[in-house]
Amino acid sequence: MNIAKYLTSRKGMIDRALDKYIPCESTYPPEIHRAMRYSLFPGGKRFRAILTVASSEAVGGKLQQVLPSACAMELIHTYSLIHDDLPAIDNDDYRRGKLSTHRKFGEAIAILAGDALLSRAFSLLVQNCKKSGISEGRVFKIVREVAEAIGSLGMIGGQTVDIRRKKRYTKEEIEYIHTHKTGALIKVSVRVGAILAGAKPAELRNLTEYGENIGLAFQIVDDILDASCEKEVPNYVAIFGEEASREKVRELVREAKKKLRTFGEKAKVLSGIADYLASIVVFH
Amino acid sequence: MNIAKYLTSRKGMIDRALDKYIPCESTYPPEIHRAMRYSLFPGGKRFRAILTVASSEAVGGKLQQVLPSACAMELIHTYSLIHDDLPAIDNDDYRRGKLSTHRKFGEAIAILAGDALLSRAFSLLVQNCKKSGISEGRVFKIVREVAEAIGSLGMIGGQTVDIRRKKRYTKEEIEYIHTHKTGALIKVSVRVGAILAGAKPAELRNLTEYGENIGLAFQIVDDILDASCEKEVPNYVAIFGEEASREKVRELVREAKKKLRTFGEKAKVLSGIADYLASIVVFH
Repeated sequence: MNIAKYLTSRKGMIDRALDKYIPCESTYPPEIHRAMRYSLFPGGKRFRAILTVASSEAVGGKLQQVLPSACAMELIHTYSLIHDDLPAIDNDDYRRGKLSTHRKFGEAIAILAGDALLSRAFSLLVQNCKKSGISEGRVFKIVREVAEAIGSLGMIGGQTVDIRRKKRYTKEEIEYIHTHKTGALIKVSVRVGAILAGAKPAELRNLTEYGENIGLAFQIVDDILDASCEKEVPNYVAIFGEEASREKVRELVREAKKKLRTFGEKAKVLSGIADYLASIVVFH
Repeated sequence: MNIAKYLTSRKGMIDRALDKYIPCESTYPPEIHRAMRYSLFPGGKRFRAILTVASSEAVGGKLQQVLPSACAMELIHTYSLIHDDLPAIDNDDYRRGKLSTHRKFGEAIAILAGDALLSRAFSLLVQNCKKSGISEGRVFKIVREVAEAIGSLGMIGGQTVDIRRKKRYTKEEIEYIHTHKTGALIKVSVRVGAILAGAKPAELRNLTEYGENIGLAFQIVDDILDASCEKEVPNYVAIFGEEASREKVRELVREAKKKLRTFGEKAKVLSGIADYLASIVVFH
């Protein structure tokens, strides 16, 4: 299997679904829908949505059943980026090569567009449940898990520690930020796919550990690519050094792949995603 | 029945439940939990949560079954106030006689505290479902309804039009703002209680219309109490005049109460809430 090809094709499907799930630009009031769409498209790699889909497939789930929930994960990711970029938080003028949402539409609309994307995410999580034949108990579980993963004990908790603007973060703080700010959403993206597809407890445990390893690896890769002179941004490389960071990524990828062994062929995509992360570190 | 006494007693129960549902101040990271609690307590009248409880009781529901969802409505209301008060939006330094959240904790924490309250609201909506014996189908319905009521076609849509900062808003804009910014959350608060308690279609229809009327009345009362010289704030009184606004409240309250007729004694609280709104207008 060609992983790059797979990822591109999946990204296309997710983009088309997202397009369907968000009101068009002319929907009243147009200014909010323009801002929501501006932030969502063309978008990044759709890494979180792809993890949801691939994790569901690893336990025999079907793409169509998890597509709304996979898209919900992207809406949450996008909402978090919009709010992170705000002047009061990271004050970033650019995101993915274009003006950040608040620079394009003003701060007020940016705050509201983030809020609206978060609300929309929850309506997608409960969408198509009956039609797609997924039991209501599973959908409950994912709503609760997602809400907790992104709240004050999860993603927002990580973001809270991230903005302490300290000269030097402790190792504990860096690890807390990574496992919460980025890791919690990545882990729950994997779990959502597995839960919806009816993973057995042992399968869910393995996939969760895969998600934890891959989430941390993802953030360290980001830190390696990003390692800059900015002192007040917590960065793994700044604390542990570049070589140790690369080694940590390799180790996390190895651990992640170990957790996939029992799934055989069906986890090829998850395994490919792990390899892809490791390869970035090698070639950078 | 003494409605004032009822409301005070219900507010007490809701406050105690909210206290239980939000992590304590020392929970890591403390800065976010301090801000969440600061914004939530002592809080206002808990009007939305009380509507949820009273609406459930009107169709024979039990308080304990709807308490988490009633609290979710207050978390959503509080999140919306925190974000509304931000410098980029209404730039309010005070809220309920104390510093607004961003003035007390800074803008970054205020944005994140709002986000965290919204996430927590969704985890409360799916809480206790099995324990409390409410069918999963009903819980689904409320998650979807709440997510839609507060999104870009509901509350956030109203807020978007509200911040157009025009010299003069059209009647259509004012009505859109009122029915969406305030009305959507009030209406859905009523519906959530009714749906969870298993309202029949005709009951749900009547309670929904009660909620629509009461929601608009609530906002016009607010506008009457608030009628100020600020030109760039959309205000019902500024467009329709004070006497017409008072008459509108009386008419909405009459309509709201008509919808309660078939419920008899069980809708006494909902009826009392309507009377209470009318009385504010008389005595002001």
